[in-house]
Amino acid sequence: MTELITFGETPLRLSPTGDQRLEQAREATIHADGTASNVAVAADELGAETLWLSKLPESPLGRRVQSQIEEQGVETAVAWSEDPAHRQGLLFREGAAAPRGSKQWHDRGNTAAATATPAEFPMDRVQETEIIFAGLGTAVLSQEAAETTGALLRAAGGSGAMTAVDLDYSQGLAPPDTYSGVLETLAADIDVLFAEEESAREALDRSGGPRELANTIAAEYDLEIIVIRRSDRGAVALRDSPGTNIIHERETVETETVDPTGEMGAFVGAFLERLIDGSDTARSLSYAVAAATLSRTVPGPFLTTTAGELDPIAETVVDKSR
Amino acid sequence: MTELITFGETPLRLSPTGDQRLEQAREATIHADGTASNVAVAADELGAETLWLSKLPESPLGRRVQSQIEEQGVETAVAWSEDPAHRQGLLFREGAAAPRGSKQWHDRGNTAAATATPAEFPMDRVQETEIIFAGLGTAVLSQEAAETTGALLRAAGGSGAMTAVDLDYSQGLAPPDTYSGVLETLAADIDVLFAEEESAREALDRSGGPRELANTIAAEYDLEIIVIRRSDRGAVALRDSPGTNIIHERETVETETVDPTGEMGAFVGAFLERLIDGSDTARSLSYAVAAATLSRTVPGPFLTTTAGELDPIAETVVDKSR
Amino acid sequence: MTELITFGETPLRLSPTGDQRLEQAREATIHADGTASNVAVAADELGAETLWLSKLPESPLGRRVQSQIEEQGVETAVAWSEDPAHRQGLLFREGAAAPRGSKQWHDRGNTAAATATPAEFPMDRVQETEIIFAGLGTAVLSQEAAETTGALLRAAGGSGAMTAVDLDYSQGLAPPDTYSGVLETLAADIDVLFAEEESAREALDRSGGPRELANTIAAEYDLEIIVIRRSDRGAVALRDSPGTNIIHERETVETETVDPTGEMGAFVGAFLERLIDGSDTARSLSYAVAAATLSRTVPGPFLTTTAGELDPIAETVVDKSR
Amino acid sequence: MTELITFGETPLRLSPTGDQRLEQAREATIHADGTASNVAVAADELGAETLWLSKLPESPLGRRVQSQIEEQGVETAVAWSEDPAHRQGLLFREGAAAPRGSKQWHDRGNTAAATATPAEFPMDRVQETEIIFAGLGTAVLSQEAAETTGALLRAAGGSGAMTAVDLDYSQGLAPPDTYSGVLETLAADIDVLFAEEESAREALDRSGGPRELANTIAAEYDLEIIVIRRSDRGAVALRDSPGTNIIHERETVETETVDPTGEMGAFVGAFLERLIDGSDTARSLSYAVAAATLSRTVPGPFLTTTAGELDPIAETVVDKSR
Amino acid sequence: MTELITFGETPLRLSPTGDQRLEQAREATIHADGTASNVAVAADELGAETLWLSKLPESPLGRRVQSQIEEQGVETAVAWSEDPAHRQGLLFREGAAAPRGSKQWHDRGNTAAATATPAEFPMDRVQETEIIFAGLGTAVLSQEAAETTGALLRAAGGSGAMTAVDLDYSQGLAPPDTYSGVLETLAADIDVLFAEEESAREALDRSGGPRELANTIAAEYDLEIIVIRRSDRGAVALRDSPGTNIIHERETVETETVDPTGEMGAFVGAFLERLIDGSDTARSLSYAVAAATLSRTVPGPFLTTTAGELDPIAETVVDKSR
Amino acid sequence: MTELITFGETPLRLSPTGDQRLEQAREATIHADGTASNVAVAADELGAETLWLSKLPESPLGRRVQSQIEEQGVETAVAWSEDPAHRQGLLFREGAAAPRGSKQWHDRGNTAAATATPAEFPMDRVQETEIIFAGLGTAVLSQEAAETTGALLRAAGGSGAMTAVDLDYSQGLAPPDTYSGVLETLAADIDVLFAEEESAREALDRSGGPRELANTIAAEYDLEIIVIRRSDRGAVALRDSPGTNIIHERETVETETVDPTGEMGAFVGAFLERLIDGSDTARSLSYAVAAATLSRTVPGPFLTTTAGELDPIAETVVDKSR
Repeated sequence: MTELITFGETPLRLSPTGDQRLEQAREATIHADGTASNVAVAADELGAETLWLSKLPESPLGRRVQSQIEEQGVETAVAWSEDPAHRQGLLFREGAAAPRGSKQWHDRGNTAAATATPAEFPMDRVQETEIIFAGLGTAVLSQEAAETTGALLRAAGGSGAMTAVDLDYSQGLAPPDTYSGVLETLAADIDVLFAEEESAREALDRSGGPRELANTIAAEYDLEIIVIRRSDRGAVALRDSPGTNIIHERETVETETVDPTGEMGAFVGAFLERLIDGSDTARSLSYAVAAATLSRTVPGPFLTTTAGELDPIAETVVDKSR
Repeated sequence: MTELITFGETPLRLSPTGDQRLEQAREATIHADGTASNVAVAADELGAETLWLSKLPESPLGRRVQSQIEEQGVETAVAWSEDPAHRQGLLFREGAAAPRGSKQWHDRGNTAAATATPAEFPMDRVQETEIIFAGLGTAVLSQEAAETTGALLRAAGGSGAMTAVDLDYSQGLAPPDTYSGVLETLAADIDVLFAEEESAREALDRSGGPRELANTIAAEYDLEIIVIRRSDRGAVALRDSPGTNIIHERETVETETVDPTGEMGAFVGAFLERLIDGSDTARSLSYAVAAATLSRTVPGPFLTTTAGELDPIAETVVDKSR
Repeated sequence: MTELITFGETPLRLSPTGDQRLEQAREATIHADGTASNVAVAADELGAETLWLSKLPESPLGRRVQSQIEEQGVETAVAWSEDPAHRQGLLFREGAAAPRGSKQWHDRGNTAAATATPAEFPMDRVQETEIIFAGLGTAVLSQEAAETTGALLRAAGGSGAMTAVDLDYSQGLAPPDTYSGVLETLAADIDVLFAEEESAREALDRSGGPRELANTIAAEYDLEIIVIRRSDRGAVALRDSPGTNIIHERETVETETVDPTGEMGAFVGAFLERLIDGSDTARSLSYAVAAATLSRTVPGPFLTTTAGELDPIAETVVDKSR
Repeated sequence: MTELITFGETPLRLSPTGDQRLEQAREATIHADGTASNVAVAADELGAETLWLSKLPESPLGRRVQSQIEEQGVETAVAWSEDPAHRQGLLFREGAAAPRGSKQWHDRGNTAAATATPAEFPMDRVQETEIIFAGLGTAVLSQEAAETTGALLRAAGGSGAMTAVDLDYSQGLAPPDTYSGVLETLAADIDVLFAEEESAREALDRSGGPRELANTIAAEYDLEIIVIRRSDRGAVALRDSPGTNIIHERETVETETVDPTGEMGAFVGAFLERLIDGSDTARSLSYAVAAATLSRTVPGPFLTTTAGELDPIAETVVDKSR
Repeated sequence: MTELITFGETPLRLSPTGDQRLEQAREATIHADGTASNVAVAADELGAETLWLSKLPESPLGRRVQSQIEEQGVETAVAWSEDPAHRQGLLFREGAAAPRGSKQWHDRGNTAAATATPAEFPMDRVQETEIIFAGLGTAVLSQEAAETTGALLRAAGGSGAMTAVDLDYSQGLAPPDTYSGVLETLAADIDVLFAEEESAREALDRSGGPRELANTIAAEYDLEIIVIRRSDRGAVALRDSPGTNIIHERETVETETVDPTGEMGAFVGAFLERLIDGSDTARSLSYAVAAATLSRTVPGPFLTTTAGELDPIAETVVDKSR
Repeated sequence: MTELITFGETPLRLSPTGDQRLEQAREATIHADGTASNVAVAADELGAETLWLSKLPESPLGRRVQSQIEEQGVETAVAWSEDPAHRQGLLFREGAAAPRGSKQWHDRGNTAAATATPAEFPMDRVQETEIIFAGLGTAVLSQEAAETTGALLRAAGGSGAMTAVDLDYSQGLAPPDTYSGVLETLAADIDVLFAEEESAREALDRSGGPRELANTIAAEYDLEIIVIRRSDRGAVALRDSPGTNIIHERETVETETVDPTGEMGAFVGAFLERLIDGSDTARSLSYAVAAATLSRTVPGPFLTTTAGELDPIAETVVDKSR
């Protein structure tokens, strides 16, 4: 049985080689880089049986996306679009050293994924998974994509699966309003919400520290678990319990960054894989922080590791819950 | 005074490195590759004062296009679009050895260039140029682009400039009908038409050898000069003369191909540069064939050469007019 | 249901970049390159459901092999060896222009694959496949490997599958005697034998043209079908029929070679995929010749194509059966 | 009207790829890297209309220099030398991590630039510029180069332009004496002098902190403005005012260095562009410090940025004037 | 006369390019990387006449090893093995940023070097050298290799040479027991022992700080000099003197690491070269620390430097002996 | 004893990567490429004991030249110049496909090699060699270089060595007159002269076929052997014999060219190695033609091969002497 199903668009990311600026670049690397597939890859590397659902154009670019995900051992169920008007989403990314910040440009209009419908996916398998995951970065692409996301969450959730969603906010893809609107629509079908601290503030128009964010968001959307990742300052998980909320907090492990991309996918994928494996929220959070750290030491957005390599790093994650 | 003005969209071309298939590619080279700019570069390298007109998004991708053209010494007059909905056109290209053919995929919907209007360009300079050139590959993108192409041809032609157009047909960009329709609309303002033999057959739904093509197309559209390039079998130019048509035919020079792209731009650019320099059709045709040949020995779509290097090759072009 | 199961060792191939000689090389490309996996990839690309069986060391090198095969969409069933004495097979290859010949050096002692036993594989699936394939290049590695090859052929063949074997001879891996000995042992369980013409002569110590080779080998080993590939001179297939043998012969399609490796895998994979699809020997042979040709235009030993791209090339393959 | 004209030799810089030592290197990157062109590129990127004057050999190496500068949008006025004895200056550079220092080797004997004369440049444009800039690294190459530098400064300064000079000292190009001698000769025609702190000490044989350096040098050479850049410790600018000198001091912004080359050019170019734009010394100094910082995050000696990107970094520059 | 002779196996090291994980790698760099040859290269660069003894397979891989060592100016005396069963040792290495550690995998079974015998080397030269050096990483490969190491040490030592050995411990090559066993056997013929602190603890099953390690190991094996390198925390040397032991201790110089490999070879080579040049233990230790530091700034395991570059760094090494 | 000593300047050659034109190039490969060292490498690879004499600047560029030659196993005796005015010779080379020809630009003024004197070399070894070789490309650099070439030829020839010289003509290095002048001066000390057919015509102002060239040049300069290489049309050797001249002629072996550079060095080195080995002129000529062919299949100017690989190719060289 599949343990984790993830759904979402995966753009091809083009990044200039060798720290070049995009406007100077003569060469770019190409990599499949989407939240749903990054989460699937991370969970799969650590031991979960995963399936990635998406819609791609029947073109070399679409096949390029699928094959790089399958290379990682993730099973895929792709709805192939023959409509020439359905594009493959692209993402141009320019890495940068401080104080110049990394930048990205979405070129994701009219993509195949934005037209996906539930009927294009194996719903029987959706109804049998342990956890289903989706990122709102796909749901904000179109009305259709939002509805499909909702239908998948309901189908799995209705059959007893845990439903998990990442806020997955990215400047320039859609306005903050769209994110909060979609979240409101889907909230009733979400058990676990992941969000980066800054994204939560910007997309949901909130302020306050991570604990306050977790408490108010969990309350407003009636979530079972909410996990806030604080980029290089650790993470916080809040679990709704009868009478009280339990908060766990972790510090980040120090690292020399090779490539920061894919950090959130590694974080979420590891968290979910631990839940599947039977860990509690506290242990899953440590593991997620360790996975995010390790993903920074590997080029590309995929977490390439084994549980055996991750375990000792997870041991070093500092608990600062109290 | 500017001697040659060219107008048209220039996509960024992404090509997998090292003969890889696009669906396997981990790295791609990036190059500005548009008919109008390729023609401008070729003419400029050979000595003409050239100016390229286009519209680009105000983004790193748009600046990337401009800077690579300026690197070749061509002056540019770019209308910069701040509208985030205006994309930079992309072109994915996979080179291939026979019997597998090279392939390309246009990703050129909603581009900035398709929204260009005459008011965005320095029309005073258009009215002072010796020759104006446009490719129909831009005119077929939108009604607006077709009208702008027409307006530029009329403005220059009305001031005494020679007006030149390349059929510039490419499968998958627009249906053949659109090309022939646009050509018909613009024909009254065209003095010289360039076309690749196969493109002429496909886009204009014709048959017959190159001489027959030249004769019937020249007649139908009432053209002064028509030049048919026959890929690796040379070229034919027909000059309309009172009472009779004069046909020139040239054989291709043998070459070891390093990169076939940009061949048509080199051909047209060299032909026009020779006309500006005072050569007649016959001499210009030899020069154009030589330039196309030489462009095959250089990677990328730009002709990088000097008149001094091209001259001896042009001498070896065989005249088979009779 | 799986349509094709292939079994065999897949070495990692290291090739100097940029035509360098191995003894000068500062950099090498790495690619999984084994007969059984090359066949599986080719058949899968063209539409067959394929499964690759092998044994690999539980190490980054072993995982490297598996992931590159899964990237192509082939399902894998790998027996992972934890024994540190079980090596990952390596193959050093130096490509060369004529008159200097390409060379390869096997570094394949003590590999995990040579210790594979039937119990390590999903025999239920073996018993349900339509075709099973193995290369003798694995069977010659050890007594155990030969026995496992035999057991797999018998298990599948006994359940009604077609059994196919490639002679898969390579200088320096094992002496010719070993190949002919293993073939003799396995012959009773082989329906279809593939061989390169020169390999057949050298490993089986025979002479004569390809038709004579096919006839005498088919007779000696009592084969249903034998297919002789003649490198750049086409291929011959002989089908044993009551009372008479039917011979089909095809010419090679002309090509500009980018990388000749993987040609035999493409040939065999395409041939078997066609049989699965219901084609007869004659049509399968044309298709196999086309696939081998196309594989020369792509870097690396994998056939990357689609049936749609291959069909028109297969149409051009010349029948010279009579 | 041109706002900034810069004059000086631009060598081609060859640097081993990948941190290799020059004595091991198999490959080198090639980049135009001269003080005058680096300054021009930086000012142009930030919005000033710039023109670069130089003399180059009529050879592929000379054209290579020009095209890379034009790629950045800078206009060029090149005196082309047909004399085969006039070389293109070369600079071999080996980057290094601490404690091993970066090193460079000048190969700049007999260069075309050292033979430049005022008559080879468009003096009418020199007389109309707002600012003219030259580096002493060219003036020390030959008596002729020093005289040409002086003539250009006088021509522009006499027409009301501000005249700016960089001390531009580099070990191994010419002895310190030559620099101080040339500076003395030109001093009467210099309004603004830029210098790196260590270079000022070594070339002008002085000691003391940056403020003392600024004061004594300004006094000795009777300069209007002197700007001392302190590598990773910020910068100091002294503006001569009736009765008193005003000193501004800035700290460096912290950065992860990708490539330190071109830092001084970015600094000077940004300072001058701000002056042209109407900023005062204090604001120009902050901007220059920010530009130098940002240039360290981009490979190659050119500042690739926009004013929009630089502004927020300039805001963070700490004023420690008091 | 040869001043330093080193003996030992040199594997070819394959490392993924660009921080890739081995299991993802498409390309690897190739470099000869063995303790004995790294020591020889370092000593040679700094001025000693050195000769490297080893046994290699007569194959492109074997020749690859030799030529890269000769490129550095080291003389070689190679016993070439024609036996196809004698492999070239390989080493796969994956560099990594913290907290993920660098890893390496030995593929060194059945190597030619493990079969070397004294008769295969020029023993007359061994008897005339000033210093002979061997690493135990070769001696642990086989009984034969241990005996050959012993015979070479005795031959040189018996003729008055100083005999030096590096513990040269590497996880996964042989168990700690084997190292301590071989050391015990050879101890009577060893004057100077080098060891990395952690390796000494692990291979010799000891605890305590570096000074304690030095004292107890020197006592147990009756060594004249023992040098303990403490990775990034400096080094300690103990010289046995009548009545008392003299301890020298040095701190590490701070550095930005480009490639940490080859550090121990640089350390040992520089120490021995200084001894040959007449320095005492204290001065040699400073020099060795400086060389190890500098080797971290250069890619690859070879120390590429000159005495002139190393001297000023050695001056900065801090003595913390008391 | 050394069997072959070669003397001459070896420039560092910089070639754009990937078929780029020099004026576009962003990256270049670096390789030591001089006639004398190319000849030494070829002879050494095939089995001769060789020593290369030259003078180099004491700089990373000079050391770069030496180490690449030593990497090939050739012994070197280098006179190191500390004079900063003595440059390392450079050669910029642009490879090209037909009809565009390859081009090169010499940047070889003021090189160290041009100042070499006999006293800087081990003349005792010169007097003991079997063959000495020099290329006139060094002798034409300066009066000093010509005299040193003469002194070395006389010293070796006077002790019984065979003296061999390559005409070594290259456009742009020195005028034809200089070559013929130097040849005339040295002729009395030359036994064997090598020349490329076209170079012989241009530098010595002659016409006629290769046999006529050989006859007239041998007669004019009173040479024992003259060998004319005809690029892709084979080679001719004339041996002066009492009463008659014996002519040998060979056809070229067909090859796919990877890199044509170094062909003449391979040709001459193989010819001389065969003479040393005892072959006669006829056999040496076949071997030289085979070596030149094989060198075209390897990137870079060095012949990387073994006698075992060359022998079968030499067997296929067609004799068309009669």
